[in-house]
Amino acid sequence: MAKSTEKQSDDREALKSALKTERDTDLRLALADLHPADIADVLESIPLDQREKVFAQIDNALIGEVLVEVSEGVRLNLLENLDSQSLIAAAKTLDTDDVADLIPDLPDEVIAEMLFAMDKQDRLRLDSVLSYPEDTAGGLMNVDTITVRNNITLEVVHRYLRRRGELPENTNKLFVVDRDDSLLGTILIGDLLVNDPESRVSERMDAEPVSFEAMTSAREVAAAFERYNLVSAPVVDDKGKLIGRITVDDVVDVILEEAEHSVLAPAGLKEDEDLFAPVRSSIRSRAVWLGVNLVTAVIASWVIGLFEDTLRSVIALAVLMPIVASMGGNAGTQTLTVVIRGLALGVITDSNARRVLIKELLISVMNSMIWAVAVAIIAIIWYRMPGLGLVIALAMSVNLLVAALAGVSIPIVVRKIGIDPALASGVMLTTITDVVGFFVFLGLASLILI
Amino acid sequence: MAKSTEKQSDDREALKSALKTERDTDLRLALADLHPADIADVLESIPLDQREKVFAQIDNALIGEVLVEVSEGVRLNLLENLDSQSLIAAAKTLDTDDVADLIPDLPDEVIAEMLFAMDKQDRLRLDSVLSYPEDTAGGLMNVDTITVRNNITLEVVHRYLRRRGELPENTNKLFVVDRDDSLLGTILIGDLLVNDPESRVSERMDAEPVSFEAMTSAREVAAAFERYNLVSAPVVDDKGKLIGRITVDDVVDVILEEAEHSVLAPAGLKEDEDLFAPVRSSIRSRAVWLGVNLVTAVIASWVIGLFEDTLRSVIALAVLMPIVASMGGNAGTQTLTVVIRGLALGVITDSNARRVLIKELLISVMNSMIWAVAVAIIAIIWYRMPGLGLVIALAMSVNLLVAALAGVSIPIVVRKIGIDPALASGVMLTTITDVVGFFVFLGLASLILI
Repeated sequence: MAKSTEKQSDDREALKSALKTERDTDLRLALADLHPADIADVLESIPLDQREKVFAQIDNALIGEVLVEVSEGVRLNLLENLDSQSLIAAAKTLDTDDVADLIPDLPDEVIAEMLFAMDKQDRLRLDSVLSYPEDTAGGLMNVDTITVRNNITLEVVHRYLRRRGELPENTNKLFVVDRDDSLLGTILIGDLLVNDPESRVSERMDAEPVSFEAMTSAREVAAAFERYNLVSAPVVDDKGKLIGRITVDDVVDVILEEAEHSVLAPAGLKEDEDLFAPVRSSIRSRAVWLGVNLVTAVIASWVIGLFEDTLRSVIALAVLMPIVASMGGNAGTQTLTVVIRGLALGVITDSNARRVLIKELLISVMNSMIWAVAVAIIAIIWYRMPGLGLVIALAMSVNLLVAALAGVSIPIVVRKIGIDPALASGVMLTTITDVVGFFVFLGLASLILI
Repeated sequence: MAKSTEKQSDDREALKSALKTERDTDLRLALADLHPADIADVLESIPLDQREKVFAQIDNALIGEVLVEVSEGVRLNLLENLDSQSLIAAAKTLDTDDVADLIPDLPDEVIAEMLFAMDKQDRLRLDSVLSYPEDTAGGLMNVDTITVRNNITLEVVHRYLRRRGELPENTNKLFVVDRDDSLLGTILIGDLLVNDPESRVSERMDAEPVSFEAMTSAREVAAAFERYNLVSAPVVDDKGKLIGRITVDDVVDVILEEAEHSVLAPAGLKEDEDLFAPVRSSIRSRAVWLGVNLVTAVIASWVIGLFEDTLRSVIALAVLMPIVASMGGNAGTQTLTVVIRGLALGVITDSNARRVLIKELLISVMNSMIWAVAVAIIAIIWYRMPGLGLVIALAMSVNLLVAALAGVSIPIVVRKIGIDPALASGVMLTTITDVVGFFVFLGLASLILI
C-alpha cells in the first residue's frame, strides 16, 4: 500500500512519544520507520537534551544524510556530539555535493582525515565541487553525471545502462559529450524508452539544453529551473566541458533558503538561528540589531529635541507626532517591500526603475489625499485647533512622499554598493521617515502655530 | 552547442530592443527565439502599452503557456485583450492542471464555451481537477498519469511505452494500479532501463511510495517534495484510487508563491500586485492598510494624551518616548518573525511553544540589561535627571518583556482562530508595544518624577 503523508506524520509523532518513555529500544524502533529527512525534522523541533538522546540512537548509515538535512544551527550542535571516526564513516555514505556542503562546518583536522580516507577519484571530485563558491552552479553541482557519445544507437546506450546498474538519484537525462568532454547535448531517459532503438543519440538528443557555467549564481540557476521546469541540468566550465549536473532537489533547497533569508533579514535575523540553541547564541545578533535601532531612535529623538520650546507651548504636538512618523514608516515599508521583491525577481531593472518611482509617488499622493484629510479632521475635533489640522495634514503628505521616494531608491542604491537590500533597507527607511516626520511636523508647527 | 543562461538573458534583451524599433517584424523575430516563460518574464517588466504590442505578436501556439507563466495581476491585464475564440484555442494547447489554474480568472461565458469545445474525456479530467480547492493536492495535480499492472514484465511495459510514444513532461515514474485503479506502487522509468527485462513490475516497484490524498494541503505537499526529494508523486482519492500526479515544477511554483506571501503579507500587500498596473488598482489595498495603521497610531496617541500634564511639566518625556516604543517594536518583530517562521515550517508546535516563550523572554531580559542601561545613560547625560534615566530604563525593560510575550503569543493565537499570522500579527504587535511603551514610560514618570 502507498504511504500517505498522514502516515509519515504519524511516524514522527511515534518518535516523539517514544522519547517520553525514555527507553532506548523504543526510540530505536520508532527511528527505524523514518526517512532521514523526517528524523532531521524531529531533531529541529525538540530541545537539546532530547536531541542528543535521539541522535545517539540513529543508525550509522543514516547519520550522514540526517546531518545534511538539518539546518545549519542544529547541525553545528549535533557535530559537537560526534567523534571524527563516526564523521568520516558518515561522510562516506554521502554524495560529493552533500559532503561539500558539510565541509564548512567541520573542524580542520576532521576534513584532513576525511580527505585522507577517500579514494583518489572521490577526492578529485570533491575538489572540483569545493573549488567553486557554495552559492554558484559549481558549488551546487554533483559529479555523478552519466555521459554518452552522440554516434551510438539508443540500443547501445540501453545496454550500457543495464550493465552499469542503478542510476543516480533524479537522473532524468544523460549527457552527450565528445571525446574532450565538451557538452554536445542531453537526452532524456524517457526518450530512450519510447524511440526506435536503432536511432542514434545525435538524432534524439536536445542539442540546445539549458546549461550553466560553473560560476553562474545559485539564484540564476534557481530562476532557470523554475522558468524551464527542469529536473536536472548540466554544468560546464568556461571552455564548455561538462563538469557536473545540478538536480531539482538541490534547487528547491536554494529557493527555500532564499525565502528564509528574505523573511528573516528585514528583522535582522540570520538563517542559522536554532530555536532550541542555548539563549546565549541568539543574544548577540539580537542585541546588535537592537543597538542599531537604538542609534536610529536616538537620532529621531534628537530631532524632536530641537523643538522643545514648540512642544512646551503646544503639547498637542507631542501627542500627535507619532502618527506622522508611523504613517510614513508604514507607507514606506509597503513601497520598499514591493521594490526589494521586484529587484530579487529581476522585474525591476535600471531601465524601468523611473516608472516604478513615478507609480509609487502617485500612489503616495493619492493616499495622502485620503488620510491627510482624515488625520486633520481627527486633530481638529480633538484639540479644536484648525491650524493644527493643517500642520498635521501637510506634514503627513510630505512624509508619505518622502517615504515613497526612499522606498524606491534605498534598495536600488544599497544594492548598487553591494549591501543586501533585505537586511539594511528597512532600518534606513524608518530612520528617514521618523526624522522627516518629526522635523516637518514640528518645524511647520513652529512656523504656523507659534 | 549548449545554451547557457547568459544566452537566454541576451534573447530577452533582444526582445526589449526590438520593442524600441517599433517594427512588428523585429518583434516577431525576437519572440521566435524565446521560451514561453521568457516571454512571460519580459511581459512582467514592461509597461502596459508595450505589453499589448508584444502580446499581439506572440505565436498562437504559445499564448496559453505564456498566460500560465505570468503572475495573476499581469494575466488579468492580458486577458482583457483576448477574444474568447483565441482563448479557447489557447486553452487547447494546455495541460488540464494549467487550464484549471486559468479558469478562476476567466469570464463565465468563456468558461462555458471552453467546456463546450472540449471532448468528453478532457472535460471529465478538468472536472476532477476543478472539484478540489486550488491549494490542495487535488488542485495541483495533473491527470496525465501512465499506469501499468503489477504482474507484467518490464519488457512488456517497455513495448507499451514505445507504442504510446512521447512521455508527459517530468515523467520519472509510472504508477502501478490494480483493475480498480487502486494505487499499488510506483516504478521509476530508470528502473525499466537498468533491470532485467524479464523481471516483473511487482518485483521492481516501490510498494510504499509517498502519495497524497486529494485534500492534502499544497503546503504539506511542498514540504514532502522537499523532504523526500521527489520529482513526481501520485494523488489518490479517499478510497486509495489513483486520480492524478503532482510534478515538481508545480511544487516549485507553490514554494515561490508561499515565499512571496510571507514577504508581502506583513506589509499588507497582495501577491497579485502588478508593478505596471494602473495606479488605481494598487491604491485601494494600500489605502486600507494605511487606514488600519492610522487607527492603531491614533490609539497610541490617545494613550499619550492621557499624560498631557506630565508631558507639559517634563518636556524631556516627549523627546525620549519614541525610543521606548521603537525598541519594543523592533525586539517584538524579531520574536514574531522567528515564531511565524517556526509555525509555517511546523517546527513550533503546541508541545514546545512554552519552551520557545521561555527562551524569548530570557533573550529579552538579557537585552534589557544591556540596552536599558545604555538608554538610561543617554537620558541622564542629555537631561541631567537621574530619575528620568531610571524611568526610561524601567519602561524599556517592561516593554521588551511585553514584546517577547506578544511576539510569541500573537501568531499562535491568531492562527488558532483562523487568521493568517503573516498578515495580521505585525500590526497587532506594534499596537501593543506602542501602547505599552507610551503608557508605562509616561505612567512611571507621573509616579516617580512629579
